[in-house]
Amino acid sequence: MSFSFTILGSSSAVPTSERFPAAHVVNIHERYFLVDCGEGAQIQLRRNKIGFGKIDHIFISHIHGDHTFGLFGLISTFSLLGRKSDLHIFANPLLKSILEDHRKYYYEHPLPFNIIFHPLGSKKKELIYEDKKAEVYTIPLKHRIPACGFLFLEKPPPLNIIKEQVIRQEIPVKDIAGIKSGKDFVNKKGEIIPNYLLTLPPFKPRSLAYCTDTKLTESILPQIKEVDILYHEATYLHNMLERAVETGHSTAKQAGMLARKANPGKLIIGHFSARYKDTEPLLEEARHEFSRTFAAIEGECHTIEQVRMKR
Amino acid sequence: MSFSFTILGSSSAVPTSERFPAAHVVNIHERYFLVDCGEGAQIQLRRNKIGFGKIDHIFISHIHGDHTFGLFGLISTFSLLGRKSDLHIFANPLLKSILEDHRKYYYEHPLPFNIIFHPLGSKKKELIYEDKKAEVYTIPLKHRIPACGFLFLEKPPPLNIIKEQVIRQEIPVKDIAGIKSGKDFVNKKGEIIPNYLLTLPPFKPRSLAYCTDTKLTESILPQIKEVDILYHEATYLHNMLERAVETGHSTAKQAGMLARKANPGKLIIGHFSARYKDTEPLLEEARHEFSRTFAAIEGECHTIEQVRMKR
Repeated sequence: MSFSFTILGSSSAVPTSERFPAAHVVNIHERYFLVDCGEGAQIQLRRNKIGFGKIDHIFISHIHGDHTFGLFGLISTFSLLGRKSDLHIFANPLLKSILEDHRKYYYEHPLPFNIIFHPLGSKKKELIYEDKKAEVYTIPLKHRIPACGFLFLEKPPPLNIIKEQVIRQEIPVKDIAGIKSGKDFVNKKGEIIPNYLLTLPPFKPRSLAYCTDTKLTESILPQIKEVDILYHEATYLHNMLERAVETGHSTAKQAGMLARKANPGKLIIGHFSARYKDTEPLLEEARHEFSRTFAAIEGECHTIEQVRMKR
Repeated sequence: MSFSFTILGSSSAVPTSERFPAAHVVNIHERYFLVDCGEGAQIQLRRNKIGFGKIDHIFISHIHGDHTFGLFGLISTFSLLGRKSDLHIFANPLLKSILEDHRKYYYEHPLPFNIIFHPLGSKKKELIYEDKKAEVYTIPLKHRIPACGFLFLEKPPPLNIIKEQVIRQEIPVKDIAGIKSGKDFVNKKGEIIPNYLLTLPPFKPRSLAYCTDTKLTESILPQIKEVDILYHEATYLHNMLERAVETGHSTAKQAGMLARKANPGKLIIGHFSARYKDTEPLLEEARHEFSRTFAAIEGECHTIEQVRMKR
């Protein structure tokens, strides 16, 4: 029952010798979502031992090179390895044209798999993905070009039944699924046993908000409030605020200030400008505003533990 | 007076966690030539401390992704860093269309530098670049699509004058340049002093032949004969000969056999299939045919020393 966030790239537009452009993997119950796909993403997937076969869904925040240039190589590799399963790409419609143009030049044969393209808007929040375990919503951002972040929400997992109660109340198998989904139980004597006596307290659904590229905007607060992990860009130090505003980016201080209002479990800052060889000053600046801040580092995996709610 | 060959990527189409796609740097007298530009080339340039400002010429062997996908990021980074100087790209004309399509989507502003595109044929050898220090010729290859390798030739450097002779023969400054270019000298007594008595033996012009992607072809022998470094692809072991022929590639044994006939100073094999985690068997196979063989390894720089010719 994993919920984790792995960083494949922490740089902004210009990579450094240590930092790759934006790419991340969200794992919800062993379902893997690739979030942005900068140059070298496929190499970083390999290095982090995330099998290519696990990637069926790719979410692209916006159509800038540092978030998309890794797609060409990844698609090519999928093709060369004989991938058969559908690949879902969620992105601004512009990317569809780019991939189609690209296909003209680069693929000698038809791809052995389908690319299913899901066009994204960036004006209002939308549910763009749903399965039994998770939902994904867009988070409208404010960048130089249309951009959206993504809110990953775990669906409440089924309740755990207390084994001793199954025996004591002589619960038949046919009633188990109902109890796991929250129903009460009527025993042989006709007594109603309330669900909360039969099950452990439910797990708190976990959540992650991914917000890049964007300038500081409080309009996203309702969506990012109390998430377990808030990933927010911090391209610059606050002494470069003017440049940040001009280019549609945030400063580390702003990311921290926003986190103070949103109160996530932790804030991860990333998308660092190549001018910062050392990211420590960015981390310090954000931490001054919000203590539970971490700097994105290639290869680090942030796991959100399951926690039972109080009854 | 450098002449060196640095490997940025030794993989074939599918990169591994250790091996990047094709990219190499030839340095002739501090003039840097980028040869192929696979995904991640800009990161590899940084890691190998080869300044972006030094790259004015890019040679692309053929239009497959593993030789070109790094161009998009590199051009974008050049632009973001405010490059002003012309960038010369030598490639099949198809690449021009790709870059033009790409520009439509990705560059918000005009690039601050000119891309000067030099279309390459792949049917016959051609002189495609020349300056005071070097010449570059195409080497027609045999791949699934039009492809050419590159022959880098150092021009003979000026002769070194023996200082003692300048004093003994009372050579005036005005005659120095002539002697360095090979002229004899007439002294005050009217004696003709032959050039070979005034100068050290000349340096042997250095050379490197870059041959990928290609199946084995002896048609290139006249061009690669006796070069100092022969870089030749060895995508497969010889037990996959059929696959090599089918896909237009060579085996390590074939690369070694060709080297035995061409007799280069050394053979470097590369462009290894991702199926080989360890490249040692490829190296052994090629070495069995030609002992002075080395396997391409990311970050390794092969230097060709200056050697004086015998008179």
